[in-house]
Amino acid sequence: MNEQSLVTLDMEGVLTPEIWLAVAERTGLEQLKLTTRDLTDYDELMTLRLRVLADHGLTFSAITEVIASLVPLEGARDFLDRLRERTQVVVLSDTFEEFAGPLLRQLGWPTCLCHRLEIENDRIVGYRLRQPDQKRRAVTAFRSLNYRVIAAGDSFNDVGMLEAADIGFLFRSRKNIQERHLQFRALEAYQDLLSAIEEVRTEP
Amino acid sequence: MNEQSLVTLDMEGVLTPEIWLAVAERTGLEQLKLTTRDLTDYDELMTLRLRVLADHGLTFSAITEVIASLVPLEGARDFLDRLRERTQVVVLSDTFEEFAGPLLRQLGWPTCLCHRLEIENDRIVGYRLRQPDQKRRAVTAFRSLNYRVIAAGDSFNDVGMLEAADIGFLFRSRKNIQERHLQFRALEAYQDLLSAIEEVRTEP
Repeated sequence: MNEQSLVTLDMEGVLTPEIWLAVAERTGLEQLKLTTRDLTDYDELMTLRLRVLADHGLTFSAITEVIASLVPLEGARDFLDRLRERTQVVVLSDTFEEFAGPLLRQLGWPTCLCHRLEIENDRIVGYRLRQPDQKRRAVTAFRSLNYRVIAAGDSFNDVGMLEAADIGFLFRSRKNIQERHLQFRALEAYQDLLSAIEEVRTEP
Repeated sequence: MNEQSLVTLDMEGVLTPEIWLAVAERTGLEQLKLTTRDLTDYDELMTLRLRVLADHGLTFSAITEVIASLVPLEGARDFLDRLRERTQVVVLSDTFEEFAGPLLRQLGWPTCLCHRLEIENDRIVGYRLRQPDQKRRAVTAFRSLNYRVIAAGDSFNDVGMLEAADIGFLFRSRKNIQERHLQFRALEAYQDLLSAIEEVRTEP
């Protein structure tokens, strides 16, 4: 009999739009379009984002209003519902609890491990990473609980999670990521990801 | 700023009826009424249960039919929904994936870490614990991911989880368990448990 399985999924890009990109589009602040692909140092990137928000007087409420208007990617909820009927699912995201809420609600409140913002008088004054390399560490923890972990993500910050998992899939990732990580099967459609997960789950 | 929090909940007795008790009532098999509250050795208890099933020719299908007719405890879904809006929740249960499904569906598919049965020709021929002391180990794993873990359970098999957590609550537990574990606050109503969790979550 095979092991029990648990699937870890990235949120932004896999289940929902990229939150900062959406904020950039709605506010017209081009600098918020920078991602980890442009600035590899996450702290540098977040410090820049928070400075841009402060410089333009953007409140926490204003940003959550933008986020509240977002919806999950087409088909994401159905994919997740079908997956949750079959196995355990945990979302591993490098976003913040305060941002994720409106999207997690629309996804039926899957368990989501992420980070937290520091908010004072409706201003985002800082952020608190729960721990460095959290996705990889979460996968390692679930494996230590004797789960066969199957992971899917789209970006550089998912590579640690995919590497630590028993099986990792790239989902809707850019060509340059796929080319650098040929060990991970790259998929584009939810139905294909669901089938691939089922295959791994039920193999002896 | 306080740590991010994660709540671990026992399933049977806290969110749903005791599955084996329900099976005992529907089948009239008195021996199936024994629970972890009565027999603290889990292996002894499960071996007894499986022998009773075999002796009476009870199939896996017959038991899942009973389980499919069960509903969560009154107020459990509402409690869980409200809790999941506020923080992360993981159900830690010593039941089996094959039994938990119909109840987890009615609870909105919270993540649930449990065990698995061995089924052959519609007979439960054995069970596979994912790991010994799984509830305690899961709590320890979540704490290693820098979560403040708040746990609630009703029975002897929850004590390890409550001990490992930052804060543990006994919920709808028997007097004898409460008296032996005075370090855990004992609560009876969902509203009280929700308030107690919120208090712990938001304290500095």
